[in-house]
Amino acid sequence: MLSVEEALEKILRKINILEDESVPLLDSLGQVLDEDIISDIDVPPLDNSAMDGYAVRSQDTIGATSKSPKFLRVIDTVMAGSISRQEVVPGTAIRIMTGAPVPAGADSVVQFEDTAEEPRKTATADQTVSEVGILAEAKPGRNVRRAGEVIARGATSLRKGTVIRPAEIGLMASLGKSQVKAIRRPVVAILATGDEVTEINQPLPEGKIYNSNTYSIAGLVKRYGCIPKILGIARDNEDELVSKLRQVEDVDMLLTTGGVSMGDYDLVKDILARDGDMVFWKVRVKPGKPLAFGMIKINSKRGLTKTIPHLGLPGNSVSCMVSFELFVRPALLKMMGKRQLAKPTIEAIIEDTVKNDDGRRIYDRAIIERRNGHYYARLTGPQGSGILTSMSLANGLVLIPEDRKKVNKGEVVQVLMLDWNEEVNL
Amino acid sequence: MLSVEEALEKILRKINILEDESVPLLDSLGQVLDEDIISDIDVPPLDNSAMDGYAVRSQDTIGATSKSPKFLRVIDTVMAGSISRQEVVPGTAIRIMTGAPVPAGADSVVQFEDTAEEPRKTATADQTVSEVGILAEAKPGRNVRRAGEVIARGATSLRKGTVIRPAEIGLMASLGKSQVKAIRRPVVAILATGDEVTEINQPLPEGKIYNSNTYSIAGLVKRYGCIPKILGIARDNEDELVSKLRQVEDVDMLLTTGGVSMGDYDLVKDILARDGDMVFWKVRVKPGKPLAFGMIKINSKRGLTKTIPHLGLPGNSVSCMVSFELFVRPALLKMMGKRQLAKPTIEAIIEDTVKNDDGRRIYDRAIIERRNGHYYARLTGPQGSGILTSMSLANGLVLIPEDRKKVNKGEVVQVLMLDWNEEVNL
Repeated sequence: MLSVEEALEKILRKINILEDESVPLLDSLGQVLDEDIISDIDVPPLDNSAMDGYAVRSQDTIGATSKSPKFLRVIDTVMAGSISRQEVVPGTAIRIMTGAPVPAGADSVVQFEDTAEEPRKTATADQTVSEVGILAEAKPGRNVRRAGEVIARGATSLRKGTVIRPAEIGLMASLGKSQVKAIRRPVVAILATGDEVTEINQPLPEGKIYNSNTYSIAGLVKRYGCIPKILGIARDNEDELVSKLRQVEDVDMLLTTGGVSMGDYDLVKDILARDGDMVFWKVRVKPGKPLAFGMIKINSKRGLTKTIPHLGLPGNSVSCMVSFELFVRPALLKMMGKRQLAKPTIEAIIEDTVKNDDGRRIYDRAIIERRNGHYYARLTGPQGSGILTSMSLANGLVLIPEDRKKVNKGEVVQVLMLDWNEEVNL
Repeated sequence: MLSVEEALEKILRKINILEDESVPLLDSLGQVLDEDIISDIDVPPLDNSAMDGYAVRSQDTIGATSKSPKFLRVIDTVMAGSISRQEVVPGTAIRIMTGAPVPAGADSVVQFEDTAEEPRKTATADQTVSEVGILAEAKPGRNVRRAGEVIARGATSLRKGTVIRPAEIGLMASLGKSQVKAIRRPVVAILATGDEVTEINQPLPEGKIYNSNTYSIAGLVKRYGCIPKILGIARDNEDELVSKLRQVEDVDMLLTTGGVSMGDYDLVKDILARDGDMVFWKVRVKPGKPLAFGMIKINSKRGLTKTIPHLGLPGNSVSCMVSFELFVRPALLKMMGKRQLAKPTIEAIIEDTVKNDDGRRIYDRAIIERRNGHYYARLTGPQGSGILTSMSLANGLVLIPEDRKKVNKGEVVQVLMLDWNEEVNL
């Protein structure tokens, strides 16, 4: 049976990065840039003041102190967004606001706090004081932000492959950019299978269960920035399953839940083996052993067909979610053009003893807490693969290696973090 | 001047949790539950099989081994979603699929691997084998999932105040729930101020800069699960600013950028002081000193007014984003009903020497990397408050305490993490 790493490698080998799209700047959040961003302006565009104060010639301030101020004649006021047509000549200064372009002749700005003029609440150009006392020396370049110091014209400010976060959005806006070329978000079809599965929001017939997998998986698809397309439920018969699969159009991945274990009515893997290109259907992991992976043909636009990856997730609710985190998430991130595919992992001291009796890698649900500079991992309780409450209580998955029969309380274990605090603020 | 903690406390004291709304299950991802979820069904609804195999009376399997199998007569087959009307009496067994209800009379399930019947690809009820060899003893309860073992009827499965993640969505679906009572997402109005600011996607007039703050802030608002409402740009004159503020309707928070420092044309704080209830306008932090906070009246539905928090963020692009992370983010999370308001913090070894000459708390932009079991923090380069590229390079903010004149290379510092790997997958 394949190890987790072998299975993941087989999946990722079949996954290609999707094509790009042109998307409005703000909508691109979380997508991956598919172009180098080369600036056609200097940022800032002109030398400008970092402070509110007076633009001066630094020579004119030599020897200035609060006890012996140097007095300069004020010849103009310049605000951010304006340009002074005056030149600062010896013995003069121009009153300047933060962000305003530094006038000709000036090489530094003395902030208000270092002048004899107290800041005033309101002032217009008319009310400009005629003289100002400079109370401190200003070195050349003091409080001046140089044109192009953030981004020079012609420079590459962001590289193709960068994940677009709020800072990158701001950076592109500072260059005037309103549309971005980014790898598009994968559309993921989700199909539940099984005669026992009933849609939510209706009474539950005897012997049936509600369709929870579709919703936990759709939630995960959304959480990682992709678009879920819910296909409903297919009964456990070949005709219905094949007909549902024929309706799958123009998606980038198919996820089915259920129908992949050893039972007579587990059709998904049989159909995949017959109609698709089945790569594997079992992984040495617990929960999540019955995972099927293959490539299947679906209908595309205008009667064409295309081949997409299909992951047949186990029907048990915990197995289904854990399989998603281990195998589907990295595949989707790769499609999106991301390079960091692994979830963050930490080391923690386990507070329970865990036995491993069948040589599979175990991912047990745990509550991770930091105390006295160490992380501690406490199991959530019973670890049955249908006990979805264990996923709801957990913020991490404790890894028990396949070659360990037993991990004792107090040992250090690897933990795959599901969430960092409340960083799940979608 | 207020410390970061004092300023944050003053802000949070004025923030109330928003009212709830009824929202479709999947849309509630990232919101906070505003009701206890009490189950009106058992999950699973009936005792059912955890494996594909044979439902038996455990007594009938005593002494069974692969060398001396116990043979039982097969009287029925039961699939998931069906119920067998037969009873397992001594000497009989019912073929059973994973998830199918355990028939009357049976108290355990023997999985296929422990029977003489090899799993077959297809079978219908007609083809049921008439006899099966049991190759191992089955203890009572073996491979049986008990009715209600995940969630018992009447039990509270999720408490009011829980953050809704994919697992919680799955859990609620497993109870048949399709609508959720959750605290609604805050709507955040964003208004840029300044004569120098020009809208993106048009040529840049001389002396002007593009409006980047609106987009970086809107990106942050989205990233944390709230709804940005972009109001555009107000010029630096009182009439225009007041008239723009009058148009703010039915939002939960107002963010302005710029207009809060010492300059003559920094109107925001003056208008806030006059028309609103200004709480403070300076914080002992770098970047981000000129932060204004107050409560202002805006128009609400049907001619009513309401009072909302207003944060006047600094105009410098880095200061603006850092102020958001330090002050706006916790305020929004509190509005959303979240309890964990702080970003994750780690300890790292700093790889640069940082001076602190004016007694403010510094948050320097840094690249955090893990090497040999330790985190290392390397500054992104020049730390000017207008150098937005520093935010784009950074994944963390290094904290330099207000009472330290200098922190030396090699010292351990606190780091507020902006992102964990690529966990920014919106």
